[in-house]
Order: sequence, then structure tokens, then C-alpha cells
Amino acid sequence: MSDDPLLVHEDDPYNAETRTSALVGREITPNEAFYVRNHGPMPRLSSEARIRVDGLVERVTEFAAGELADRFESHEVTATLQCAGNRRTGFLDVRDIPGETPWGPGATGTARWRGVRLRDVLAAVGVREGATHVGFTGADLSDAADPPSEFGASIPLAKAMSDEVLLAVEMNGEALPLEHGAPVRVVVPGWIGARSVKWLTRVEVRDAPSDNFFQAVSYRLLPAETDPADAGPGDGISLGPVALNCDILDPATGTEVHAGGVTVRGYAYAGGERIVTRVDVSIDGGESWCQAELLGEADPWTWRLWTCDVTLEPGTTTILARAWDDTAAAQPEHAASLWNPKGYANNSWARVPVRVRPA
Amino acid sequence: MSDDPLLVHEDDPYNAETRTSALVGREITPNEAFYVRNHGPMPRLSSEARIRVDGLVERVTEFAAGELADRFESHEVTATLQCAGNRRTGFLDVRDIPGETPWGPGATGTARWRGVRLRDVLAAVGVREGATHVGFTGADLSDAADPPSEFGASIPLAKAMSDEVLLAVEMNGEALPLEHGAPVRVVVPGWIGARSVKWLTRVEVRDAPSDNFFQAVSYRLLPAETDPADAGPGDGISLGPVALNCDILDPATGTEVHAGGVTVRGYAYAGGERIVTRVDVSIDGGESWCQAELLGEADPWTWRLWTCDVTLEPGTTTILARAWDDTAAAQPEHAASLWNPKGYANNSWARVPVRVRPA
Repeated sequence: MSDDPLLVHEDDPYNAETRTSALVGREITPNEAFYVRNHGPMPRLSSEARIRVDGLVERVTEFAAGELADRFESHEVTATLQCAGNRRTGFLDVRDIPGETPWGPGATGTARWRGVRLRDVLAAVGVREGATHVGFTGADLSDAADPPSEFGASIPLAKAMSDEVLLAVEMNGEALPLEHGAPVRVVVPGWIGARSVKWLTRVEVRDAPSDNFFQAVSYRLLPAETDPADAGPGDGISLGPVALNCDILDPATGTEVHAGGVTVRGYAYAGGERIVTRVDVSIDGGESWCQAELLGEADPWTWRLWTCDVTLEPGTTTILARAWDDTAAAQPEHAASLWNPKGYANNSWARVPVRVRPA
Repeated sequence: MSDDPLLVHEDDPYNAETRTSALVGREITPNEAFYVRNHGPMPRLSSEARIRVDGLVERVTEFAAGELADRFESHEVTATLQCAGNRRTGFLDVRDIPGETPWGPGATGTARWRGVRLRDVLAAVGVREGATHVGFTGADLSDAADPPSEFGASIPLAKAMSDEVLLAVEMNGEALPLEHGAPVRVVVPGWIGARSVKWLTRVEVRDAPSDNFFQAVSYRLLPAETDPADAGPGDGISLGPVALNCDILDPATGTEVHAGGVTVRGYAYAGGERIVTRVDVSIDGGESWCQAELLGEADPWTWRLWTCDVTLEPGTTTILARAWDDTAAAQPEHAASLWNPKGYANNSWARVPVRVRPA
């Protein structure tokens, strides 16, 4: 097992997920272990970098990144971020997904984010009538966009005005690290990580969702039979709030354990504004389930860690897990029925095969 | 086929669902076709009946039912109500559920509800600090409760203060019918029907959910292995917002159709505050799917009717349907993996077997 908490998928752009060994049992993911999802080279911005707030506002205003914390009240939100492609590997057994990062269960993490509320900034500049969305642009240029462009996204105005959406300048008590968007990133709790734009340079109040490539074309769930090369703006389901999800972190996939009592550990995340109400574990293919113990407190913005003691017989076993939310919705059974051409939102049951040796 | 739009499951208490033939293709369900879920005999109240607002309020106040519309601004909300037991029949093939009504897909309907906003009433009486929930009590006595009691429920204060929660006095432009709670019922859009308390007599502002039997003990999703007789207050998942769901209304289950082009029609409902983003139909057991046309407009408070043209070969076919919401969550595949002792929240894929005769 590597000591490096990150499993690097790509160096350029730098993309790395947290190893399960570094996620397991930790409510908060340390900065050096937090997954990194980039779409281009990381821009190095100083605290003098400007953030322009424009569009449907009363007063177009530029702030220096470093002055935000002085101008507005400071708030902290503990929030899970989760990549829309988290657990994509579960799709790859069904059908290949060329050109997309093969994220396992570690494209997610939870941090204490500190910064200023987006709504306080919007109040300072005055939102004009007709505004319905708020767009964000980062300084990172991506040639994954067609044509190449800065990374961008948008969220509905109602979400932008919520208590929990921050322009964050600190992560777990430290200045925001370069790879997490220094000096200022957006944090949109409950939504896919792609909406939490890093290296923020612009906030645009709009009367429609952003037409940035990563909002209008990418990060959309297409029907299985679609060729993604044919997908244009507005096709598919625009990903926003995260779908109910969970995974098993320990034992790790494909490892060997001793027969007898085994403690299964993992995370569950309800997404959107929902909470996790139950997690089930099965060692008989879903014929019967035991209820995991949920650790910590229910909170819509953070994952729920869980633990479940099972007794394993020698042989080969696949451990299953599934979460339920506060509507009593449970995760779908099979990745096969959720497979989609860009490999987003695999929230099928967690399935971790293990070899069980005689005790 | 009966001309009566309602299929009566029980006369005392009166419980009836809408036949699929009366649901299909109608955005609004007529009053005489709207499903009725009762827990006891229907009380006949006059417009003089009192509604007491008490608990954590500044001024305990009683309103006559008939004066609400004069005292507060009138609002209309088009909203779907759905029984937590809707589609319970899908569970009965898995294992019997004694003592619960065998609801098919018609324990749901959509109406234009007119009344006053609960939040305006709460503002008039003043909500005191520490309030977190709002409880409702009806005049209907139920011996399904242990001990027998009036029907009741509660919702969190944040939902109670929303635009959409009404104390309704009209349904589809008519005075609220007796069986739908005359003279005043609560309407909680997006939540299970059981929270929309009928024959309202009391609104209690509280610092905790209601301890009424139907909130604290019943309408809770228990793990499959639980004996419901052993379930006590607080056990299981308290049902609130409805889980993503859909069903096929035409063709009807078990009917005969001619081979060739067949239009499949149904409803989908995202529940909670979500919207339906896609509905898929399959005639090959889920190997491939075609996307249904979504009718009407996306609205979190109402179902989305849909239609899909398929071509059927002679033989026996099971038509499948599933809906997706705006988190790109889809319905789970099988009722078997969702079965629970009280038979709530069956939101597995719709499965309608038909016999296809040569054209």
C-alpha cells in the first residue's frame, strides 16, 4: 500500500483521487489527501487577483481576492464535495468510457470551508430584476472545452442566495491550497464538485444558466445510446445536486480478509438538500441486509460515515452496501442499468469482492 | 371496465384509489375521481368548526374554518398528492403485507388547491423562539392508532413557512369535498399525502415532530426483517418528502393489445422539491430504453405525464418504465429489494405485463 494518500490518474491536467485507505474513518479529509479534479493547468494567482461581479447587477464591482475576507462577514461550512464521475469504475465493467478519468470511490472528500457568503457579495452589488442564475468563471484554461475556454459553471439564484454557498478562502483552517483553487473558490454544498469553481475570477448574475462548455455541454447525463461527440448544448440531464450514493472503503476491493468477524466501513452521501437515513450491508447478494451504524450527525452538506460488523465464511464474497435518504429512496441495484456515455452519477449499490481465508 | 372512476378498497373507513383509466392523460384529476385515504369515519364539520393554533405561539388563537379565507390572502397551488402506500401491490408478489390496503398505481392525483398560506396564519399568531415543527390534528378518530386517536402529523417549520403549503378550502374550483377534508385541510406539496391532514382542527407549533401515532409510529419505513407489531415511536425512516416514482397507466396491467405501434402513457413524480428530468420505457426487460416525451411543464409540486410510442411483437411482453430526477437519480429496479413490512414507498421500475395479439 502506498503512503501517498492520493492516487494520481493524470499529471496534466493534474487529476488525483483519495485512496480508500486515506478516506476510511475520517470525518474530515486532510488537505493533502483531498481529491483534485482539474480541467487544465493550474493558474497561480496572487491575493491581488481580481474577481469581477457583473451581469444583472446594480453596480459592476471588482474585488481583490485578498480583500473579500475584510469586506464581508466570515462563515464556515463543513461540506462534502463529490465529483460527478465518482465511482465511474463501476461503469467500466459494463462498457468502456473512452477519454474520461477512471475514478474509483475516492473522488469525494469533506472539508471545513471558510470564506464569505456569496449572497453577501451579491447583496453588496445589488441583484437586478430578471436574475435567475449566477455564473462563475475560473482562471484555468481547458482545452477539453470546444473551443478551449476557461472553466465555468452556474447555479440557480435561489441556491446562490442560500446560507451554505461560500466564496472560500480557507480549507480546514489553512489558506486554500493551489490545487483547490487559491486564492478563492466557490463552494456549493450538495452539488457536484464541478459547480464549485476554482481560481475564481468572475461572478456573473444571469437570466439563464451559463453557456460555458462545462455547464451547457459537459457534465450532462446522456442516454446510453447517445454518441457524446454528437451531444450539443442542452442535451441530457444537467447535473446539479448530487444523487444519493455510498461506497465501501474497508475492506478494499479485491483484498484478502480472514474468516470470522469483519468490520465493514464506508461513507454515504445523500446529496442535494437531503440526509442519509439508513445504510444497509449485505453479504448474501442482497437477499438479506444488516443495518450499519451511522456515525456522526445527520447533515445535508456532509457525508455520513458508517460501520457494520459482519461474519464472513471462507471463500469469495461480494460485500454490498446501499444508502437510503429521507424520502426513503434507496440506491439502484446495478451499474449496468445506469451506464451512460460520459460515465456520470454511478450511484448503484457498492459492490466490493473479497477473498476470505480460513481464520 | 367500470364507469366508476374509483376502485373502492374499503367502505369503513372509506378508502378508494383512482382507476388507471380515469388517471390517464389528465393533468388534473377531477374531484370525483381523486383517490381517498381515510383512517376512520369521515367527520362532518360546518364552516363554524374551530381551528385552534397553539403551542409555541405568541397568541393562542382560534379561527372559524369559514373565516380563514376572509382573514388571509388567497393562494392557489397545483399539487400532486401521493399516498405513501401507492403501488403497494408491487410488493405483494414478493411477500404478503397483512392489514394494509393493496393500493395499485392510483393512490395519487393532482388538483388545484386554493386556500391560505400556513405561513400567513403562523405570522398572524406569532411563532415563538425554539419552534422547529408544526403539528396538525384532524377531527377524524382512528382506531388504527394505538390507543385510538385523532389522525395527526407534522412537518418541519421551514416547510411550513414555504410558499406552497396551504390550508386549503377549495379543490379544483369547488368547495373542498367532505372526503377530501371539508371544510379545511392542509396541503403539503411534495410530501406524502398523510401529512396533508384533513378535517383540520388544530395547528400546533412545536419544538419536535408530532407524537401523534401516524407521525411517530406509523408512516415509517421499517427494515424488511422487522415485525411491525414490535415497532415503536421513532423506529424506521419517517416518511416525509415523496421518493421519485412513476407508473404506466395505459396499457393497463394484464390487458391485451394488438401487435404493432402502441402508445404507452403514464405519470412520473419526482417528489420532495425535485423535478422529473427524463422517463425511459423498455420493452426488452431493460436491455434498451427509449425516452418518453414529457408533457406539460416541469414543476416540483406536480407529476409529469408522459407518452412513448413502442412497437410490440405478438406474444407476452412486460413494458417497463423508470423516471430520473434533476440529480440524475433513477428509480431502483426491483420491488423485492425495497420490500418493507408496512409496504411503503415502492418506487421500483413500473412493470406492466401485456398480451400482444397478432395485428
